[in-house]
Amino acid sequence: MSTHHWWQQPAANIHDDIREQASLYQSQLTKPPGALGKLESLALELAAMQGRIHPEINHAHCIVFAADHGVTAQGVSAFPQAVTVEMLKNFVCGGAAISVLSNQNQFELSVVNCGTATYCGELEGVIHQSIAAGTADFSRDAAMTPQQAEQALQVGFDQLQRVQQAGCDLFFAGDMGIGNTSAASATAAVLMKCDVATLTGPGTGVYGKALDHKTEVLVNSVQRAQGNIQIPLDALIQLGGFEIGAIAGAYIRAAQLGIPVLVDGFITTSAALLAVHLNPSVRDWLLFSHGSAEPGHQQLLASLQATPLLDLSMRLGEGSGAAVALPLLRQALALHNQMATFAQAGVSESGLEEH
Amino acid sequence: MSTHHWWQQPAANIHDDIREQASLYQSQLTKPPGALGKLESLALELAAMQGRIHPEINHAHCIVFAADHGVTAQGVSAFPQAVTVEMLKNFVCGGAAISVLSNQNQFELSVVNCGTATYCGELEGVIHQSIAAGTADFSRDAAMTPQQAEQALQVGFDQLQRVQQAGCDLFFAGDMGIGNTSAASATAAVLMKCDVATLTGPGTGVYGKALDHKTEVLVNSVQRAQGNIQIPLDALIQLGGFEIGAIAGAYIRAAQLGIPVLVDGFITTSAALLAVHLNPSVRDWLLFSHGSAEPGHQQLLASLQATPLLDLSMRLGEGSGAAVALPLLRQALALHNQMATFAQAGVSESGLEEH
Repeated sequence: MSTHHWWQQPAANIHDDIREQASLYQSQLTKPPGALGKLESLALELAAMQGRIHPEINHAHCIVFAADHGVTAQGVSAFPQAVTVEMLKNFVCGGAAISVLSNQNQFELSVVNCGTATYCGELEGVIHQSIAAGTADFSRDAAMTPQQAEQALQVGFDQLQRVQQAGCDLFFAGDMGIGNTSAASATAAVLMKCDVATLTGPGTGVYGKALDHKTEVLVNSVQRAQGNIQIPLDALIQLGGFEIGAIAGAYIRAAQLGIPVLVDGFITTSAALLAVHLNPSVRDWLLFSHGSAEPGHQQLLASLQATPLLDLSMRLGEGSGAAVALPLLRQALALHNQMATFAQAGVSESGLEEH
Repeated sequence: MSTHHWWQQPAANIHDDIREQASLYQSQLTKPPGALGKLESLALELAAMQGRIHPEINHAHCIVFAADHGVTAQGVSAFPQAVTVEMLKNFVCGGAAISVLSNQNQFELSVVNCGTATYCGELEGVIHQSIAAGTADFSRDAAMTPQQAEQALQVGFDQLQRVQQAGCDLFFAGDMGIGNTSAASATAAVLMKCDVATLTGPGTGVYGKALDHKTEVLVNSVQRAQGNIQIPLDALIQLGGFEIGAIAGAYIRAAQLGIPVLVDGFITTSAALLAVHLNPSVRDWLLFSHGSAEPGHQQLLASLQATPLLDLSMRLGEGSGAAVALPLLRQALALHNQMATFAQAGVSESGLEEH
């Protein structure tokens, strides 16, 4: 493989000078300094990313990437594989959590099939970029070929080109794929060089003996793969999923295009980790929405030095945690952009020296 | 005083049967059980309060109660007392944080003057129910007379009657009053029977020696008042504020009228504590929006066995934290009411026994 793939090109620059100017502006607003807490820093982050003192989110776009996982043959999930395609239909028919949130919070929602096991080519409203009918069972072989891994990243690239042309100014990804907590745990473990057992959790609902079994399958899978992993892309090839690759590609391309990214939960954070390992400059473009109830999520976040905005014990995927956090970003910007300054409002400033 | 004041009348009943039915309904939605975390329990809480399986928030109403505090004569605040009235003007002119959030999040906003030191009778858009030109300096005397304390509670009663008639289905209060973290800390300390120093913090921006001074003033004030406190209302009389009394009265009346309450930050939580001490049945009607950066807030929340939804290091007051959390409640209800069931969507259910 060449060393100059598209995904290795640097992310767009962060405008530190604009952050500085936005911070000066913010200090004049009619509130004690710092009183809006994380909403203040969030507005400054977005100012620095968007390169304007008054950042805006007018075209938030969520893309749910769906794919199936061969490792489900080992009985690692609470739900049958058919659910992946059944849920695709639910997404486009408006009955899924992410569909309800899209309507409630006014963001664009696209659904991309990057490789389901069941044929679903007839599903209207789904974008079909299927790489294969699910990955191979990674407890036995590599999850995908090197070519398929590049294809997966390319799906993310293509989708970000599309939404950029539609004016996207905030991007978030969702995931759907029965078995994908297994792929996410295994991929993250080899990237973080930690014991996969510490990153293995219930996913959609695997507890007790079934969870012990899932852990055993993952420990053995990582052991099998270990010798074949030299570079970050090998983690995707050996233990990843098509949707995880597509999300990583989407994050990288968003960063290159200068589009702020809001990361969702466990699966998307594993994709963020992969993206940052493939291209460290991507990190500056990632905001983190919520801490998931999936126990491994905290470690992934720590590895990315990320502090999420919300902690609501959610563990659904689909982009639902990012969707729920979106109003916080919009509120942070509304406050930053619309509050009166002390001078405008004729309000007296603090009589004390600042801390 | 009579033992049968209006504020001692029981709160409306919580509909536990409806919570049960709503929970059964929720278990059929197309998601793994529990995957929406706190958003699920929030929907059930609101179902139980509103007495319907599909609760709704169509008329959220915020009332900011403003008043001044005689104890500011002791130099306990970072801002001059004139700011209370200056901010009232900012509220009604749309430049304050709560005004911006009212516009952004679509809730009704009322502003009530329950006793500012500066005359502001000409301010259009402000409801005037002024009890006096600020409280007395509670480091020297009782903050208010028993009659004034009853008047303060009555302001809250009157306002809730008004918003109920306007169809209010979710109420939250905001506070404005230079010096009111001092009143809140002192009131809460005597109710919780704890050292006021542990509840004293920077407020709008008092640090270092100025904070030591504030703490000393509060310790002495509580010491002065201690002997005069037999019943919860005495805490308000001796160390409270008009807006704190009005908010407590508003919470009690909301609970009696069966209107769910979303509590904001430090000041409103001290009012919630007062309300619950005056009438324990009120507790069932309180939801908690955020953990404030004001260090004493955690103790107040613990005393009320409350876990807030957000932790964004906010410390502004005005109802801003509750306003920021409002979209979470609306999203919880949208998900609960609008998601498809497994049967409706034709999605397969979990193959594993539930945990």
